[in-house]
Amino acid sequence: MSATGSLTVLADVDSLEVREYPVPEPVEGGLIMEMIRANVCGSDVHILHGHHPLVRPGRVMGHEGIGRVARLSASVSTDWAGQPLAEGDRIVATYFQACHRCPECNNGHPNICRNAYTGWSTPAEEGQHFYGTFGTHYAVGAQQGVYKVPEAVSSKAAAAANCALSQVYFGCRLGEVSYGDKVVVLGAGGLGVCASAVASAMGAEVFVAEMVPGRLAKAQEFGAHHAIDLTQADDGDGRVELLREATGGGADVVIDLTGVPSAFSESVRSTRSGGIMVEIGNISPNKYTEFDPGLFTRTGVQIRAAIRYPVEVLGRALTFMADTAHLPWESLVDRDFTVDQVPEAVAAAEAKEVTRAGIVINDGES
Amino acid sequence: MSATGSLTVLADVDSLEVREYPVPEPVEGGLIMEMIRANVCGSDVHILHGHHPLVRPGRVMGHEGIGRVARLSASVSTDWAGQPLAEGDRIVATYFQACHRCPECNNGHPNICRNAYTGWSTPAEEGQHFYGTFGTHYAVGAQQGVYKVPEAVSSKAAAAANCALSQVYFGCRLGEVSYGDKVVVLGAGGLGVCASAVASAMGAEVFVAEMVPGRLAKAQEFGAHHAIDLTQADDGDGRVELLREATGGGADVVIDLTGVPSAFSESVRSTRSGGIMVEIGNISPNKYTEFDPGLFTRTGVQIRAAIRYPVEVLGRALTFMADTAHLPWESLVDRDFTVDQVPEAVAAAEAKEVTRAGIVINDGES
Amino acid sequence: MSATGSLTVLADVDSLEVREYPVPEPVEGGLIMEMIRANVCGSDVHILHGHHPLVRPGRVMGHEGIGRVARLSASVSTDWAGQPLAEGDRIVATYFQACHRCPECNNGHPNICRNAYTGWSTPAEEGQHFYGTFGTHYAVGAQQGVYKVPEAVSSKAAAAANCALSQVYFGCRLGEVSYGDKVVVLGAGGLGVCASAVASAMGAEVFVAEMVPGRLAKAQEFGAHHAIDLTQADDGDGRVELLREATGGGADVVIDLTGVPSAFSESVRSTRSGGIMVEIGNISPNKYTEFDPGLFTRTGVQIRAAIRYPVEVLGRALTFMADTAHLPWESLVDRDFTVDQVPEAVAAAEAKEVTRAGIVINDGES
Amino acid sequence: MSATGSLTVLADVDSLEVREYPVPEPVEGGLIMEMIRANVCGSDVHILHGHHPLVRPGRVMGHEGIGRVARLSASVSTDWAGQPLAEGDRIVATYFQACHRCPECNNGHPNICRNAYTGWSTPAEEGQHFYGTFGTHYAVGAQQGVYKVPEAVSSKAAAAANCALSQVYFGCRLGEVSYGDKVVVLGAGGLGVCASAVASAMGAEVFVAEMVPGRLAKAQEFGAHHAIDLTQADDGDGRVELLREATGGGADVVIDLTGVPSAFSESVRSTRSGGIMVEIGNISPNKYTEFDPGLFTRTGVQIRAAIRYPVEVLGRALTFMADTAHLPWESLVDRDFTVDQVPEAVAAAEAKEVTRAGIVINDGES
Repeated sequence: MSATGSLTVLADVDSLEVREYPVPEPVEGGLIMEMIRANVCGSDVHILHGHHPLVRPGRVMGHEGIGRVARLSASVSTDWAGQPLAEGDRIVATYFQACHRCPECNNGHPNICRNAYTGWSTPAEEGQHFYGTFGTHYAVGAQQGVYKVPEAVSSKAAAAANCALSQVYFGCRLGEVSYGDKVVVLGAGGLGVCASAVASAMGAEVFVAEMVPGRLAKAQEFGAHHAIDLTQADDGDGRVELLREATGGGADVVIDLTGVPSAFSESVRSTRSGGIMVEIGNISPNKYTEFDPGLFTRTGVQIRAAIRYPVEVLGRALTFMADTAHLPWESLVDRDFTVDQVPEAVAAAEAKEVTRAGIVINDGES
Repeated sequence: MSATGSLTVLADVDSLEVREYPVPEPVEGGLIMEMIRANVCGSDVHILHGHHPLVRPGRVMGHEGIGRVARLSASVSTDWAGQPLAEGDRIVATYFQACHRCPECNNGHPNICRNAYTGWSTPAEEGQHFYGTFGTHYAVGAQQGVYKVPEAVSSKAAAAANCALSQVYFGCRLGEVSYGDKVVVLGAGGLGVCASAVASAMGAEVFVAEMVPGRLAKAQEFGAHHAIDLTQADDGDGRVELLREATGGGADVVIDLTGVPSAFSESVRSTRSGGIMVEIGNISPNKYTEFDPGLFTRTGVQIRAAIRYPVEVLGRALTFMADTAHLPWESLVDRDFTVDQVPEAVAAAEAKEVTRAGIVINDGES
Repeated sequence: MSATGSLTVLADVDSLEVREYPVPEPVEGGLIMEMIRANVCGSDVHILHGHHPLVRPGRVMGHEGIGRVARLSASVSTDWAGQPLAEGDRIVATYFQACHRCPECNNGHPNICRNAYTGWSTPAEEGQHFYGTFGTHYAVGAQQGVYKVPEAVSSKAAAAANCALSQVYFGCRLGEVSYGDKVVVLGAGGLGVCASAVASAMGAEVFVAEMVPGRLAKAQEFGAHHAIDLTQADDGDGRVELLREATGGGADVVIDLTGVPSAFSESVRSTRSGGIMVEIGNISPNKYTEFDPGLFTRTGVQIRAAIRYPVEVLGRALTFMADTAHLPWESLVDRDFTVDQVPEAVAAAEAKEVTRAGIVINDGES
Repeated sequence: MSATGSLTVLADVDSLEVREYPVPEPVEGGLIMEMIRANVCGSDVHILHGHHPLVRPGRVMGHEGIGRVARLSASVSTDWAGQPLAEGDRIVATYFQACHRCPECNNGHPNICRNAYTGWSTPAEEGQHFYGTFGTHYAVGAQQGVYKVPEAVSSKAAAAANCALSQVYFGCRLGEVSYGDKVVVLGAGGLGVCASAVASAMGAEVFVAEMVPGRLAKAQEFGAHHAIDLTQADDGDGRVELLREATGGGADVVIDLTGVPSAFSESVRSTRSGGIMVEIGNISPNKYTEFDPGLFTRTGVQIRAAIRYPVEVLGRALTFMADTAHLPWESLVDRDFTVDQVPEAVAAAEAKEVTRAGIVINDGES
């Protein structure tokens, strides 16, 4: 393990800076990774603009990615599925922790652990420095889940496992997606493509819907059975009508990935009576939509929110990638940047020039 | 069984009329009741004004109530819990059916059966005439649940079982209310009083909250442990704050019984992260509230709607009344009217002169 | 509809007799079917020998099968999924009812309705006579589920839907089979073949195991990924070891279809810690196996029993057949007999000359 | 914190020895307790005789107990419910860990973590020495749950929280005990008394049954509504009959606490059709009972095993004790011994001279 490493810091709102720090020893229960690759996720753009409640200026950028074990702490000899872990193994880690010492964890909701970002929210100047994935190293805490990457999964593919794929995998489970269900995946970006793959593998009939029709083809390539071009509707009522007609009266499960507040209400209205709506895309508070609670009550729908995921989902997401090796997982990253090009990568993501920008840090494979 | 009977018909919007019809034979699988008592529920006021989607002018008024078996059809020898049933037995029946022949029933949601109101929506001129409880008789269809009233429960008490009590009993189950939960009951009318009794019997710590503080005492009499006067808050934010403070950061379960659209959003915000909000009160579509989906997602709350109830809940509600005979159930009906005074009873309910008006039809007991 | 019909009666233990009766009008809520085909299921052999607790001498033989609507009762206009139903439509019906008027139904377990066999246990001399499927007609009661057969499903294929396929479909749901699970299907007869198809469609990795290795190939044809020849083991311990090794330490779900008492214990021991064992095959009381409760407790396994199925499962089973039209469903019936050859068909089933004997009654198609 | 402490070691089978060791620093994520009290549980007797698979000669005795925080590791500032934790605070800890790094934890079953006894199975000579509660100190690992004891709960009462009470609390949850259920508690020892308290607080009607009728009164004192003297029956069939009659045809939930293999089968047969049987008492493998799988299948019962408990249950058990402060919790410990009298205490437990022997270590309170 090299003595020092570099990382990309959010020096100030809209200002990135590369800094060098000594590579620390792992905390007891954790480990140190050498990064192979990272991805730019939509949240990284929000963070750059200062919109994250906890990842503020002074913190390290990046949360999606894959690396290799550089140093294990004394008590760690396996990953979180019980597989032996050794230096050099390719791994992915959850970008958050489940502390097991807060009311949310204690109530059985590790995905909303109130100390989820204890690591990521630590200033780069402090502690172990390497709290983001846009760097040469990454310091994994004692309560962050770690999973070995199966041989069959390339690093480029696996880099999206710890955010995009795990997020929708959890969403499908929360929505109780099961054989024979009609599932609407609202939004066909990276999350929508992953959700199409997962829901169809679970035996569902998948209807992917988008306002950007050009994105629909890839979701179909990953398993969506039907593509719905929402630009054919005039307004929200029209979109709801399109979705209800396509699904024969409303979907068993609607998964909203759009991040558009009004899509919340439209998703509920597109769910069949007694069905389940899973909200994932809307994560920024203080944006409102009109909601009709009386209509909602009469339909007996359930609304569930999926933010982050229970740690073990990451292990299942990797297994899923290995089991679906015929899918073009690497194509989710549509342009690679070097580690010196982080600002360009984030800019390309924001400009929607790319769906998912990859950052190649130390990809011995390629 | 007498040859003819009378009932109160919604002749036109805001116009009631008493009519006489021959008492019919029961349909196969159903039975005919002689009514003992009925109650005026809030929905009856809406129906009078023409606001129900299916119970339109020409239909019979009333859905809460209790009666005696007057005539059983050939195939019926027990109630729906398997207890022997004979003419003269006191019974209550669900005011709706679960048809078992629609997608909702087939999906395991008998409470949102799309043919729920096949009986009640039939004009009084047609079929078996006696489709409402504000009459001397009531015709129970083959798919309406029927339960014998335990000896220990008076007719005046049991009259509220098939709507108010069963509704909140289902709500508590849907909210997974269990031992040690902090439960907010929002609204302390008849439903709130019943919900306080049920949730506390399930082992919850109950916080009842109201904008009409005078109603709080009765909910406490029925088991609520804490009373929250919501008039102490200036606005919705203040009410949410009051509820979150009282429950130490949000309730495990919030049950909204108010019928006020903005209470939907406030209820979600008063639920702890990972908790469950049950919507019951808002049942009139086309009334809107501002909703913040991003805030919702970050809390991992679940929102569930309880409309009507699975048929078997009515049996449990009666058992509950028998098991809690120490509670002043009869006091839920705060003024009795004669069967000739139905218009007066509905008017008193609308004017909120009474919480729940009783209509004494043929109460041999009193 | 013809005026009279014929059916096969269990005149006495081990004695079958064809009798003729007038075709009755349907009971209200039910209908009359003209049979197209029936199948001989293993239980029919037991019944012939007098081993069924309720279907005793004097009753009508047969419960698997398919037919056409001959006469609908007045109140029936749809099947139980809400699809319009007309005379001439091909349908299947559950061979039992869910009465909704017994404690089991009332507790949410319609599959163990204590009045399940009210129809089938009625002597042929009484009531509507046509209470079994080995006849020209079949009388469907008001509480028996009825589902229209999709165009894409042939009558020969659909004939097994109302027993074999629905039974294991329910078993898979009770076992919470879901994507990525390792599922052991113990037994590769008709039920095992169906279970292999269903579990793999639900996204599971299916291990089918048998003491008759010749049966394994068909289960693989229907979706099982791995075949385990249990004759390679010396005894129960060896079989458990084979299954645990194949599944990497125990299956997530084991479905026991064998009907061998000791397979119950072996199935529990072949389930991973925290997994689910579903018992289906053992349905004859008073046969015992040695069970180790201490070992069981230490593994945290759950054991669940699937007898019959919730009515709506039959509709899903038909949809499943339509969705998997590429599977050789007709091959489940490996020899056809005429309606005059019922004794021969049952004898062939008992001698295991055939896996599933078909009885062609009025197959306009073939 | 004193420099050295003493503890009771299982020197050899049936041989106890007091040894002195330096008090260690806590591992990171863990803490060191000074013991106040311990209890002798039935398993301790088994361990003394060499019957535990992992707690073998050379290990430290004792697992029930309560103490005070002596030293916190750097990263620990709260208990597992998020309450601030400081030196001197009274706490209880789970006697096992949930490692989060094994297949069982990963599958959502922390109670059957395969590394549960990493601490307790460590020889006293090694590591942190203080791995049992029969000593002056106790070393809590990073993955053992720790909960602050509420003011309202005395140390003598709380000493039984981390084994007896938490075990049955988990059993009641696994059995889905809820309002109105009829629950049979089989066995009225310490576990049965606790189970009677928990199930009745959850709103169940509790039937406690025993072969030692003298124990029934205490279970009733703690909330059981009915006491069944099983010595009135001649054999297993008779016991099943007694229980089925008392509960009107079988209990909704049966919790077997006896540790007698045949009680497993009897418990299943005493459960109503569709009910749940929870096995807790049988934890020693290689003891068999005759089981009738065909009878089982026909009843649709579910059988679930509760071994240890999810960590958070301990927190709820403490809250439960605080909420039921009117119950004579201290009476569960019926004789106190000094820390020098551990052999006498274990002997008294084995001879059943006491129900639960207490060991007073450093009870500043008394």
